[in-house]
Amino acid sequence: LQRSSLCRIAVSAARVGCYSRRVVTAGGAPNTWGNNFRVTTFGESHGVGVGCVIDGCPPRLPITREEIQYELDRRKPGQSKITTPRKDEDQVEILSGVLDGNTIGTPIALLVRNKDQRGKDYTEMEVSYRPSHADATYDFKYGVRAVQGGGRSSARETIGRVAAGAVAKRLLKCFGVEILAWVSTVKDIECNTVDPETVTMEQIESNIARCPDQEYAEKFVDKIQEVRKQGDSCGGVVTMVARGVPRGIGSPVFEKLEAELAKVRPSSISRGEC
Amino acid sequence: LQRSSLCRIAVSAARVGCYSRRVVTAGGAPNTWGNNFRVTTFGESHGVGVGCVIDGCPPRLPITREEIQYELDRRKPGQSKITTPRKDEDQVEILSGVLDGNTIGTPIALLVRNKDQRGKDYTEMEVSYRPSHADATYDFKYGVRAVQGGGRSSARETIGRVAAGAVAKRLLKCFGVEILAWVSTVKDIECNTVDPETVTMEQIESNIARCPDQEYAEKFVDKIQEVRKQGDSCGGVVTMVARGVPRGIGSPVFEKLEAELAKVRPSSISRGEC
Amino acid sequence: LQRSSLCRIAVSAARVGCYSRRVVTAGGAPNTWGNNFRVTTFGESHGVGVGCVIDGCPPRLPITREEIQYELDRRKPGQSKITTPRKDEDQVEILSGVLDGNTIGTPIALLVRNKDQRGKDYTEMEVSYRPSHADATYDFKYGVRAVQGGGRSSARETIGRVAAGAVAKRLLKCFGVEILAWVSTVKDIECNTVDPETVTMEQIESNIARCPDQEYAEKFVDKIQEVRKQGDSCGGVVTMVARGVPRGIGSPVFEKLEAELAKVRPSSISRGEC
Amino acid sequence: LQRSSLCRIAVSAARVGCYSRRVVTAGGAPNTWGNNFRVTTFGESHGVGVGCVIDGCPPRLPITREEIQYELDRRKPGQSKITTPRKDEDQVEILSGVLDGNTIGTPIALLVRNKDQRGKDYTEMEVSYRPSHADATYDFKYGVRAVQGGGRSSARETIGRVAAGAVAKRLLKCFGVEILAWVSTVKDIECNTVDPETVTMEQIESNIARCPDQEYAEKFVDKIQEVRKQGDSCGGVVTMVARGVPRGIGSPVFEKLEAELAKVRPSSISRGEC
Repeated sequence: LQRSSLCRIAVSAARVGCYSRRVVTAGGAPNTWGNNFRVTTFGESHGVGVGCVIDGCPPRLPITREEIQYELDRRKPGQSKITTPRKDEDQVEILSGVLDGNTIGTPIALLVRNKDQRGKDYTEMEVSYRPSHADATYDFKYGVRAVQGGGRSSARETIGRVAAGAVAKRLLKCFGVEILAWVSTVKDIECNTVDPETVTMEQIESNIARCPDQEYAEKFVDKIQEVRKQGDSCGGVVTMVARGVPRGIGSPVFEKLEAELAKVRPSSISRGEC
Repeated sequence: LQRSSLCRIAVSAARVGCYSRRVVTAGGAPNTWGNNFRVTTFGESHGVGVGCVIDGCPPRLPITREEIQYELDRRKPGQSKITTPRKDEDQVEILSGVLDGNTIGTPIALLVRNKDQRGKDYTEMEVSYRPSHADATYDFKYGVRAVQGGGRSSARETIGRVAAGAVAKRLLKCFGVEILAWVSTVKDIECNTVDPETVTMEQIESNIARCPDQEYAEKFVDKIQEVRKQGDSCGGVVTMVARGVPRGIGSPVFEKLEAELAKVRPSSISRGEC
Repeated sequence: LQRSSLCRIAVSAARVGCYSRRVVTAGGAPNTWGNNFRVTTFGESHGVGVGCVIDGCPPRLPITREEIQYELDRRKPGQSKITTPRKDEDQVEILSGVLDGNTIGTPIALLVRNKDQRGKDYTEMEVSYRPSHADATYDFKYGVRAVQGGGRSSARETIGRVAAGAVAKRLLKCFGVEILAWVSTVKDIECNTVDPETVTMEQIESNIARCPDQEYAEKFVDKIQEVRKQGDSCGGVVTMVARGVPRGIGSPVFEKLEAELAKVRPSSISRGEC
Repeated sequence: LQRSSLCRIAVSAARVGCYSRRVVTAGGAPNTWGNNFRVTTFGESHGVGVGCVIDGCPPRLPITREEIQYELDRRKPGQSKITTPRKDEDQVEILSGVLDGNTIGTPIALLVRNKDQRGKDYTEMEVSYRPSHADATYDFKYGVRAVQGGGRSSARETIGRVAAGAVAKRLLKCFGVEILAWVSTVKDIECNTVDPETVTMEQIESNIARCPDQEYAEKFVDKIQEVRKQGDSCGGVVTMVARGVPRGIGSPVFEKLEAELAKVRPSSISRGEC
């Protein structure tokens, strides 16, 4: 057996055999997450738009376009002096699944149109692969160069997840479950002063660094600006707390709670642009 | 154990417990079909729009908006004197997954906006449940009356499937697989003269009854008009042939080819309106 | 694109490329059925044994080996003069998931060992493919001749399903759901006298034809023996009724109740040997 | 909405409503891992046995019972003075899917019987929950105390995974993919001298610490024995390398390679007993 045949076997490759370069796509459901509340995201950074379809959301849950928009506004770049200056005007449209402010048990499709589909600000990247953007892997895997904004590995893909998350958050709220996240480390500065039991959304939203401790928030802003002046960016740590979660969520062997969270995690971090 | 608890057990019900009326939604992936080429449909007849997301289509498949539109035009009501007079202007928009006329390996989202979302022509149905439209079941299951055009049990839900089918058809064409379907029976008139080995798309499209035998096509049209004059509608049979299918498709136990086809079948027939 | 490449694309084929004959296996989960109560069957007719793993059965359901064995005894050939004379001694063993007569929420593995693995009574079939046994398809699809009793297309594969069904039946019983089935037609004799609302298991089990109407039961037995004397076998119809099922089971589009049932149906009928 | 209703909603709970204590089981496929090569494990530490069913393995792959046994022998406790003294005689039996030393494309069921099902050595634990064994969570989640060896959270559950891994390893070997793992850290001693490009299985297996560097291997053994004398145990790090993996495995959004690996990882580490 030749080694080059692996794609055909182990990955159960769906491939177009006649093309000259190797094209490998995996089986499974690579753009869907969840079992009962299932989220499928779609969209490239510089195509027509990005969004998601939520299947399995219970009917009669009150949800408005504004609640989803609120979370997208929190996500968007260009909000303050410490984020990407590029501006996104991400207006979400509810295509289906909601009637008169309530879910009706059918798939909820959410769409955010891209404003600028030409990708002008990325043209210089056509010549070489960008670091941290999986350009080279895409090219090999699909035989397609997604030079225009990173394709699916763009930070804009997360719009679909944020929109779906807004619906999930609303559902969990009905049952007293609250999920909060804040910036706890920027580069080498670590903030350990936040009490996960009592921290509030208001405290987190009170500053542009989204750190509930004002003192550390200022340190974080200073550090980011210092790094930016050097033409660089830096890493950080986000701490998340889920309060009111009933005991027994997750399963003993493969679908442990940590494992399910892990499935989402690696795809939304370590991005060069977000 | 009380009998009324069954929903909580056997169906693994995701339900909103506080509402006064029983609400049952099933687990699984009720709006997704397929394993490797996965289609998720969304949309209600009188919401913003209907459509689908295709996950798993190989990259570098040539496909245009026009090819998808062609199939939607074949589907739409109001094409001839023998179909529903209601007019649909179903223009499909490719939201993602296609770049410069080729698929790129990412999810393909397709959207058809609804023209008239107010459902005026259905207002008389608010008072009573319509036959063959699952209105009563919806009301019980989701606690929601989808009076406006039948919700998900409307014939418009099939738009997402026709659009996805157009992409699948294009993919299969690359490998010499051709799938054709024609009307073979209308009410009590049966046409057995068509040879499945040689029948062509041109023959099928040559008349409004979509029967390759011109003589029977005329009989079908006459019969439908006769029934319509009586203020009634009538059933029929569609015969489908798939040519060039390689041996060995399907699996021995649960995913037999017939079983997979059966999964789609019951949802698209026995409709009052299409 | 060559037509022979289809397997590589559309079916997302996991194949061993180097072998001389075509080998195609499908993706998906071909031996698993169900979403929340998931059944995976395994085993060939003349391997070590057959059985199943049930994942998702709620904990604390009372179930005994005897209850499962009872259904297997009803299934087994050689029970009466009108069935296959070949004898199966199918003793089920509970490998996991049940402790002290109760389920514990973990996977329930059930095993029935095959008595005679040598397949002596099938040796004459090595020369030619048997009708109605999918031998030829297996050979093409997997590159394997399953001459010994039909492999997975043997009637013994249904043992895993009957065993899983016994557990499902016990679970449904807790909630007043009862599922009964009886023989309603043998060859050209049809029995329409049974009332699905009132028929009982006792009536069905009262004769070897498993028809609740004694008069028809006798006719059925006579017909089968008549056919058998001619060295032939004949078809029949089984009618099933499910009583106490809550409204709203199934989903509107792809996972309709009929569709889910259809997924199981074609695999257990039209067999030459059972 | 009361908070206590969450299980009924968000988790899509399959629950037995009449029992006095809360019982929550999740939807999904908690005991299955993988898409095309799917592994379902079953078995409790002190039930009849443990094992797995592999669905989707290509036919005509050469595999013997001995190859699977070899990996189980490497796994079993009591191999040397530095592991758990408890002895397991884990003999694997191939129940299905393999004929004359080759897979045949059907589900491969593997079973290892438990020797001592009475759990005598654990009786003292009936009074209190054990640390690191999820006993308390099981009790709440399923309403079942799995005092006898930890139920599914026992290290014996990994037997099914090791057996399935042996088959996967054999399959990957056909294509030049080799996966190796070794102990690189014990407590505070870290070994960084191993070259992942050139390290061999022989080097790893050459000592009881399974560290390819003999010098460090000795340090590891000394450290473990020192800790054991104090009636304690200690942590460590296993480093794994996969060689010959083709580019492009995994998917861009949710099924990244890291994410898929993450799904398995948390379930097999941080155990008190293994």
